[in-house]
Amino acid sequence: MSVSALFTDFYELTMMQGFYLSKKNPDVVFDMFYRTNPFEGGYAVFTGLGDLLKQLDGLTFLKEDIDYLRSLNKFDPRFLEYLKTYCFNGDVYSMEEGSIVFPNEPLIRVHTKLLDAQLIEGLLLNTINFQTLIATKSCRVATASGDSIVMEFGLRRAQGENGAMAATRAAFIGGCNNTSNTLAGRKFNIPVSGTMAHSWVMSFDNELESFREFARYYPDNCILLIDTYDTLGSGIENAIIVGLEQKSKGKKIGVRIDSGDLSYLSKIIRQKLDDADLKDAIICVSNDLTEEIIYALVKDNAPIDSWGVGTHLVTGGTQSSLNGVYKLCAKADVNGKFIPVMKISNSMGKITNPGIKQVYRFYDSEGQALSDLICLADEKLKVGKDYMFFHPISEADFFKMTSDKYSRIEPMLFKVMDKGHRIDKMETLQELQQKVKNNLNLFHKSYKRFINPHIYKVSLSSKLSSMKLRLIKEIKLK
Amino acid sequence: MSVSALFTDFYELTMMQGFYLSKKNPDVVFDMFYRTNPFEGGYAVFTGLGDLLKQLDGLTFLKEDIDYLRSLNKFDPRFLEYLKTYCFNGDVYSMEEGSIVFPNEPLIRVHTKLLDAQLIEGLLLNTINFQTLIATKSCRVATASGDSIVMEFGLRRAQGENGAMAATRAAFIGGCNNTSNTLAGRKFNIPVSGTMAHSWVMSFDNELESFREFARYYPDNCILLIDTYDTLGSGIENAIIVGLEQKSKGKKIGVRIDSGDLSYLSKIIRQKLDDADLKDAIICVSNDLTEEIIYALVKDNAPIDSWGVGTHLVTGGTQSSLNGVYKLCAKADVNGKFIPVMKISNSMGKITNPGIKQVYRFYDSEGQALSDLICLADEKLKVGKDYMFFHPISEADFFKMTSDKYSRIEPMLFKVMDKGHRIDKMETLQELQQKVKNNLNLFHKSYKRFINPHIYKVSLSSKLSSMKLRLIKEIKLK
Repeated sequence: MSVSALFTDFYELTMMQGFYLSKKNPDVVFDMFYRTNPFEGGYAVFTGLGDLLKQLDGLTFLKEDIDYLRSLNKFDPRFLEYLKTYCFNGDVYSMEEGSIVFPNEPLIRVHTKLLDAQLIEGLLLNTINFQTLIATKSCRVATASGDSIVMEFGLRRAQGENGAMAATRAAFIGGCNNTSNTLAGRKFNIPVSGTMAHSWVMSFDNELESFREFARYYPDNCILLIDTYDTLGSGIENAIIVGLEQKSKGKKIGVRIDSGDLSYLSKIIRQKLDDADLKDAIICVSNDLTEEIIYALVKDNAPIDSWGVGTHLVTGGTQSSLNGVYKLCAKADVNGKFIPVMKISNSMGKITNPGIKQVYRFYDSEGQALSDLICLADEKLKVGKDYMFFHPISEADFFKMTSDKYSRIEPMLFKVMDKGHRIDKMETLQELQQKVKNNLNLFHKSYKRFINPHIYKVSLSSKLSSMKLRLIKEIKLK
Repeated sequence: MSVSALFTDFYELTMMQGFYLSKKNPDVVFDMFYRTNPFEGGYAVFTGLGDLLKQLDGLTFLKEDIDYLRSLNKFDPRFLEYLKTYCFNGDVYSMEEGSIVFPNEPLIRVHTKLLDAQLIEGLLLNTINFQTLIATKSCRVATASGDSIVMEFGLRRAQGENGAMAATRAAFIGGCNNTSNTLAGRKFNIPVSGTMAHSWVMSFDNELESFREFARYYPDNCILLIDTYDTLGSGIENAIIVGLEQKSKGKKIGVRIDSGDLSYLSKIIRQKLDDADLKDAIICVSNDLTEEIIYALVKDNAPIDSWGVGTHLVTGGTQSSLNGVYKLCAKADVNGKFIPVMKISNSMGKITNPGIKQVYRFYDSEGQALSDLICLADEKLKVGKDYMFFHPISEADFFKMTSDKYSRIEPMLFKVMDKGHRIDKMETLQELQQKVKNNLNLFHKSYKRFINPHIYKVSLSSKLSSMKLRLIKEIKLK
């Protein structure tokens, strides 16, 4: 796959040229991390890595890209010549796709030349920010729905075609059971599903005929949309007529409700279906659903079997972006030795963590995740030792993780690309979805609460915290 | 351009097959409209038409699409045969791209066979919903900023690559002056821009050196990012040193602030620049800007010349989708005569307007838009007559537009596609941007207020309102 490297912020190219012309191209390390959990939740589901690596693998400047840059009269012919043979040549370390992740910990670490690292910022952030946002949303929706089925219906409200495709990928990884997006079904090999539209019902002379015709063609997937005219007046009554006809042929039906009060309606409809001896008829609902609405309906014992979720699932709804950033954390000096660097800024929340880092997750004896520790990559952690955990920006806020409190430590960042070549294991979306489920089970439910979740602690090691404080002082007192 | 017709909701294909096998393929008319203005604002900017027509023009099922559908074991070989030669063959009527539009009025009207109309629903809504959302956001941002420059910086927070490309297109049409998305610059022929990243500053041994190097390479576009270490401590001081050096060479500089209180900082920085006799140095700001924040800063007289807006501009921020829908409004009977149809639903807000419709905009003697009237397409309106304007769902709520109150009536829907062939005039993004500006000037400022805007009235003609009421009674009393 050849991906236009022109899909980048213009300033990356002007900065690259500046570095190129001044022959300033040291080895550098950049971290990708995000600053706050989306949806006021307790975690995020790291997603997008597979797509990112595929794109990095094929990144190239096409002839028309070079011609375009030349036409802007801002680029030196030598730099354009360099771009002609450009390909991404870096080492990439990353958390596994499908990991449960938290603010401020590096999710991806890129080791490469400065020019290389600079160019990919936009592509990397665009891919990871969006897919992580949507997988997190999907995971919340799936959690809210309990064991029932979630259908992703978002194509028409998604942000462009690729917005829809990426959203479907991430939503499936996060826990949705299937999608309405047929192209995504083909490309990602995931189940497609759908019911009927109001236009189906309106295309016939009457509702009953429309239901009968549908049952004739789709006896094995006969979900009837019952709110085109009058849900309780005609819709459910006609559905029951067809349901009984289908039952006599050994087939089941289902109904979909797309308007009105879903709790009230689903309970009455369940009763009517049961009374008609259609106990195996399922009830499916849609209409601007969110995880909060689904959770409230489940708690209210609304007898709903499946949920069609569109808009909020593929855009994030009220939160439509993850605030992930990509920041320089180390650069090689003239001798090739890495020097930690950091950004101070006028907002404390925007201060970065310096140096080349690894993240360790601590688990208790029952396998539950306890806390994450961001360390310098050359620190080697061992089970059985005590560790100090420092707050990322407040050195006075710390605790000691004594060896009796944990029984396992796992590193989180692994090498997935070597000099521009993928070395990760390529996983199917089904495998990634299962991985998310397994990973989520390692966290206490208090972290998964929708409102006001317990805050999972991500701390700095003693060595990293001291280095950070030293650098802040050096910069501020310079 | 060949576009995979598989980019559609799966139920469209199953419904199509049902229609196909039952030989039910009458002429139909579908309306696309939206239900509420985005961002709690007073209007929307209709955008995406050019992209939509291009996609419809190239819509086709690829061989791999047909193979995929066959593999699902849900499709009859005859239907798959039909899809092989499918191309979109409809007539499309539309408002002009760049029109200022309002809830419930048809923005696009599709006349074609039922199978054809059904297939394109997702593509049409995906394209129009998203681009209209973003153009509206951009228009609000540009309005808030007054006469200053708005740079679209959203690539890294956009929803996928195509989400970013479509967002950049729509944001430019809505009023942004340029983009950071270089690929969009190439493809859409619009200006690209950018400043520098914190990583530029951090790549050098000190801030002053980094500023000097940048000025050396970009003397004509030297915007220095001054908040990497300490905005007022070192950033502005180093920028002034370089500014004076550049001034001696006849060049100007600018500064960018990306954190902290933008009002407080911009005022101090303006004073420092002025005191240093760098009165022509511009101040550019960024950091999660919205139209509300920009408006507040402008009202606070913050001396800001240009705004870098990213996240909210390319995703919509807290509102990330437009609630546009596509509904059947008429179908031909066995004699080929169009019969109006409508959907009732359990929510009054989801009731549709039946019949084949045209929208007329009424203007006063000074050329200001007064009100829109949705009519049946065969109603011919004439200046000089009185017209009754009925509320879309409350027949008791009406007013009379007497002939002395208006002096011009303009139809809003025009034919843009004839039997699948584009007949619209293809416009550049620059032309569309200018059109939005001109159109916006036709509306009183009270409709453009950010908070609690004046509601622009969209009414039904007497004939349409009576027909709708008659149909509701027919359906409810059936």
